[in-house]
Amino acid sequence: MAAHAVIPKYTIPGKNRRVVLGRRPDGVPLATDFDIVSDAVPVISDGQFLVRNLYLSADPVQRGWAANPAVMALGAPMRALSVGVVQESREATIKPGDLVYGFLGWQDFAAATRDDLLSHVPIPRAAASSYAGVLGMPGVTAWLALADLAPPGPDDTVLVSTSAGAVGSVVGQIARAQGSRVIGLTGSDEKVARCTSRYGYHAAFNYKSIDLPTVLAAAAPTGFSIYFDNTGGWIADHAIRAMAKHGRIIQCGTAATANWSPPPAGWRPEREILTRVLTWSGFYIFDHVARFGAAIDALSDLIDDGALAYDEDIEPGFDQITGALETLFAGTNSGKKLIFIGDA
Amino acid sequence: MAAHAVIPKYTIPGKNRRVVLGRRPDGVPLATDFDIVSDAVPVISDGQFLVRNLYLSADPVQRGWAANPAVMALGAPMRALSVGVVQESREATIKPGDLVYGFLGWQDFAAATRDDLLSHVPIPRAAASSYAGVLGMPGVTAWLALADLAPPGPDDTVLVSTSAGAVGSVVGQIARAQGSRVIGLTGSDEKVARCTSRYGYHAAFNYKSIDLPTVLAAAAPTGFSIYFDNTGGWIADHAIRAMAKHGRIIQCGTAATANWSPPPAGWRPEREILTRVLTWSGFYIFDHVARFGAAIDALSDLIDDGALAYDEDIEPGFDQITGALETLFAGTNSGKKLIFIGDA
Repeated sequence: MAAHAVIPKYTIPGKNRRVVLGRRPDGVPLATDFDIVSDAVPVISDGQFLVRNLYLSADPVQRGWAANPAVMALGAPMRALSVGVVQESREATIKPGDLVYGFLGWQDFAAATRDDLLSHVPIPRAAASSYAGVLGMPGVTAWLALADLAPPGPDDTVLVSTSAGAVGSVVGQIARAQGSRVIGLTGSDEKVARCTSRYGYHAAFNYKSIDLPTVLAAAAPTGFSIYFDNTGGWIADHAIRAMAKHGRIIQCGTAATANWSPPPAGWRPEREILTRVLTWSGFYIFDHVARFGAAIDALSDLIDDGALAYDEDIEPGFDQITGALETLFAGTNSGKKLIFIGDA
Repeated sequence: MAAHAVIPKYTIPGKNRRVVLGRRPDGVPLATDFDIVSDAVPVISDGQFLVRNLYLSADPVQRGWAANPAVMALGAPMRALSVGVVQESREATIKPGDLVYGFLGWQDFAAATRDDLLSHVPIPRAAASSYAGVLGMPGVTAWLALADLAPPGPDDTVLVSTSAGAVGSVVGQIARAQGSRVIGLTGSDEKVARCTSRYGYHAAFNYKSIDLPTVLAAAAPTGFSIYFDNTGGWIADHAIRAMAKHGRIIQCGTAATANWSPPPAGWRPEREILTRVLTWSGFYIFDHVARFGAAIDALSDLIDDGALAYDEDIEPGFDQITGALETLFAGTNSGKKLIFIGDA
């Protein structure tokens, strides 16, 4: 767990550094796709509040945002989920000193409204950074996707891809806590060890060094009843063919494929869906913003009970954020990827 | 609608002709994959009853049965759904003269048990043939799959592949009756006309003579909320990309692909499932045998009300059955494909 205090130390810069999209990325957004500009600290108007960001977050969903001209124009500040502290407020329910998490961008300051927030935390129960990870989009996604689409129980065998990631590590622990047998797939031996020693997986495998269909068949001889998929691609091709009858697949990410235009080819799944009588559902966390608070409460209870381990890969230095998505998709981070921009 | 009387005329042959699987089919089972043998009329034991089959059915699911050594050994009688009349019974609840439908095979006679039946009809409300079609597996599949996985309503735009088929024609009419806008895809201009004139489709298209993505985009500018898929393949590739957010796909058949080993390639769907937040579910009618009777009652009510049109392609002559699956997968039948083996 991060050693950062609930609210770390910070000063107030005189300028607002902002990361803008300089070029349309071809697949994973690279550091060279962004430019850093510096302008005046924003002035808030009625209904707004001024946030001093402390943690800038790198999340897989940003690849899609950066690729989509309808979401992000070239030259616009990078859409991103940041954690910060309110400095001034002209919004009745938000007070200076409150912790907030939401669409606050990759920048020092945001002039935000309530609609920009995913969570508003007057009294934090955990480190500020955790509200972007285990208590932020990744943790809440794990909680709500399982609850809505495939609540795990003692009869389930659950397969999780990117099992050591910010979402996967929480999925594994929730499923384990509900009595399921939980199997992880991840991309390094170090992460395999973390899955079994910290995140409660009964077994985990480095997909880069195994024969996947053989290992899946051995890990679940009667098939997986739940597959929580964060990768898609060839890992999913094999996972689908390792499902038990009436299994449920949650599509939460597609990290394995960088570019979707033109549509890449893979094994046709329709026969598997039919003959295994599967249900394959997409989960999009921003459909469920109204339930963020309840999920954060439930996850905070698990942390208080010592039942939920989490890791954060926090690097200091504003300039580091432009390369954070490259790191994320290369899988070289160890825990939720954040850039700290408070005081050193 | 078929002109056949509720129970057509039949005599009792002195021998039992049986169609056995002579060769493992490579894709669609051909007439040459079967042999016809002739043996003694079976003698029933306790718990059994003797059925004289009248209608032998050709259904897409038989392709999978014939391909699967765990379901059908070479030399075994073809697993098939037939309609017949009980001649003798040593089972307390089944009486001579009762109409029955179920796993009675491609043969003149079956020595059956209750477990072989999908429906038992002491007092038929419609022609005997209809219990293998609109009141049989195809019609009940349409009814239960919609009810379970995507109940259509006035806000839905529904796409149906093989829209003039034994399942599709019922799907279209149920969805139309519930107030949905219903669009069909089928393989000939004659079937297109039948979809709109008889089955209540608002529009239907011959997929062989259109630019599918252009036509789908024009037919549902805001996307389809339900796709009832009987084909899979490239039709499904495009249909998935024409879905509205939160759309539901029912996988009921895979008629477009004859051979699944090795896995054929197609466009990867996982990004569409994620970004459109789709739910894609397989439906397997034999999971729901206990609900056959209730679905037949509901469909019979629709027929009585004149609210459900159906067509049957009934050919006489036992020898015709071996080629019936070829006809079915070529799409040259017009209505539910049955072979009549009662009296000419």
